[in-house]
Amino acid sequence: MSQTLNFKLETLKEFAVQVFVNMGCPNDQAQTAAQVLLSADLRGIDSHGLARLSGYVRLWKKQRINANPSLRIIHETPSTATLDADSSLGLVSSPMAMSIAIEKAKVAGTGWVAVKNSNHFGIAGYHAMMALEHNMIGIAMTNASPLVAPTYSNERMLGTNPMAFAVPALNEHPFVADFATTTAANGKLEILQRKGMPAPNGWIQDAEGETTNDPFSLSKGAALLPLGSDFEHGSHKGYCLGSVVDILSAVLSGANYGPWVPPFVAFLEPPSDPVGEGIGHFFGAMRVDAFRPAEDFLNNMDNWISRFRNASRINPEQEVIIPGDPERLAESIRREQGIPLHEKVVEDLKQLAQEMKVEFPERLN
Amino acid sequence: MSQTLNFKLETLKEFAVQVFVNMGCPNDQAQTAAQVLLSADLRGIDSHGLARLSGYVRLWKKQRINANPSLRIIHETPSTATLDADSSLGLVSSPMAMSIAIEKAKVAGTGWVAVKNSNHFGIAGYHAMMALEHNMIGIAMTNASPLVAPTYSNERMLGTNPMAFAVPALNEHPFVADFATTTAANGKLEILQRKGMPAPNGWIQDAEGETTNDPFSLSKGAALLPLGSDFEHGSHKGYCLGSVVDILSAVLSGANYGPWVPPFVAFLEPPSDPVGEGIGHFFGAMRVDAFRPAEDFLNNMDNWISRFRNASRINPEQEVIIPGDPERLAESIRREQGIPLHEKVVEDLKQLAQEMKVEFPERLN
Repeated sequence: MSQTLNFKLETLKEFAVQVFVNMGCPNDQAQTAAQVLLSADLRGIDSHGLARLSGYVRLWKKQRINANPSLRIIHETPSTATLDADSSLGLVSSPMAMSIAIEKAKVAGTGWVAVKNSNHFGIAGYHAMMALEHNMIGIAMTNASPLVAPTYSNERMLGTNPMAFAVPALNEHPFVADFATTTAANGKLEILQRKGMPAPNGWIQDAEGETTNDPFSLSKGAALLPLGSDFEHGSHKGYCLGSVVDILSAVLSGANYGPWVPPFVAFLEPPSDPVGEGIGHFFGAMRVDAFRPAEDFLNNMDNWISRFRNASRINPEQEVIIPGDPERLAESIRREQGIPLHEKVVEDLKQLAQEMKVEFPERLN
Repeated sequence: MSQTLNFKLETLKEFAVQVFVNMGCPNDQAQTAAQVLLSADLRGIDSHGLARLSGYVRLWKKQRINANPSLRIIHETPSTATLDADSSLGLVSSPMAMSIAIEKAKVAGTGWVAVKNSNHFGIAGYHAMMALEHNMIGIAMTNASPLVAPTYSNERMLGTNPMAFAVPALNEHPFVADFATTTAANGKLEILQRKGMPAPNGWIQDAEGETTNDPFSLSKGAALLPLGSDFEHGSHKGYCLGSVVDILSAVLSGANYGPWVPPFVAFLEPPSDPVGEGIGHFFGAMRVDAFRPAEDFLNNMDNWISRFRNASRINPEQEVIIPGDPERLAESIRREQGIPLHEKVVEDLKQLAQEMKVEFPERLN
């Protein structure tokens, strides 16, 4: 029955490092990229981890990812910067951009960095969480391949455009929200595809704009729906959110926006009439003591978290979740028991290992 | 059939100014407050305009609104400030806070202001739009009386916690998104109450956490649902958004958060164990030329807007909406034809006029 195989975190990470190094990444960048990638597997967001590694390699083979980029700041003020990622892995440009935001915040109170000419950046939460150890609130967002139709449209105009917010606390675990601005993210659809199950109403509309339950319909011109699903349930708000992510990530940085965002899959060519360079991200870091003494903030945040966790439950067995709880739980289990990879992902990675002349690690037990 | 009466914008504004002046507001603050309030009526957001004026007066009578406050910055860095609103009208503290954010942005690239000890601030969009004439992106948000249950809870823990984003363009009208982080805002429920119509599934849950269609159920312990409505449709994302608004507005400023937010209605007492002062807001201003030359940004924004407006339509008669379109349309009609007020609102205002010894204006035609 088990369709997953277990691996040790460190061996998988070393594998990813070797793949990136053999692509031509400098060693430190390969380490960073592997770290970001594996953080998804560790936190239970399997769709954004090693399962994507061969996708990155295919983009590199198409010369759409530059393994040895020169990242540079092309514009800045005391609290802002714009980074040209030189077609790098988003897994590399994003931690760098977030570090710049953090450095700016140390001096100016807050730091905000827009990135252009980048690629898929892994999980937004990783980057936002970089702010936590500095007692800063971290914000990360990115645009992505167009798969989402605005309210009233049947055209794919936006990506699933996720946003993440990480907020430090004192004794409580931090608040970490990381979510696509659609009703369902692509990863949830992939699970239904593997299980051969129908999608719930309100997740997808077909090429004509009618609701559909076919989880395979995205390959037939269907579109994901903005958070809210339909106008009556506020899909225009999800459309606003996805649009704000697109504008901050790409119009502000000079990347491609809306339907011009290059597709993540290498077998689809980017639009022949780009309006910018690569895809775009946007990062923020805000020192909590830029607003009030850190201790007061952190104490109140502890109280916020425990009050919400103890909110009255509909079902006594199901406690109210603080954003970040499920991922932290996954991490604590996986640190102990190893990283479970779906057998199809393992197959794909073994083929990749051969191609890239890297040894694929032994599985646990 | 008509339940609304038409009034001239300027006479209504003068009426509101007089009410605020007779509350004891300094003249300039009364002007600002009336301007913000009437902007809601002008833009078609009737629930947040003059319909609320007697509510503000009742809070003032309860000494929960200070008509003659000393607003002061209690903490700042180059890109941030925290404002103690001294129990002022949010209609007064918010434009001041936004002005501070704009001034900070002129020097530091961006400006961010958290406000505590405030009251209801009208429409978020008004404040965000203040940034536009400076070629800045404006952001405004506020927490509010607890009416919303987190996913898995049947307790009212959050307000409808709106957020607004205003983005300048060159020749196109600006992008202005302004929305509650719930599936439906309270104003929409009030419309159903007046019409005696049931609420759609997914808007409200009753005191036990079961879905209900009773638009009057909020007075019986029911709760509004976060954007997404239920877990399967992403209500945990709406809960995240409402939480982020609460944290930035109140934990960062030192205001009351979550279930401790004082109710807007004067007949409900604030919690006896406050965790902060008043309600909280959060504002941001980002110079677009802090990231790239303004002309490049504004040109791309024009292209973004026209491309989205021309996205393929599901129904040929229903074009794709750019956030801000409906409000701008309402404004252009109302500037010409006057402000329509519901007859019940007129009745309420006439009574208020008598109480406050102010003349209520004649209606048009």
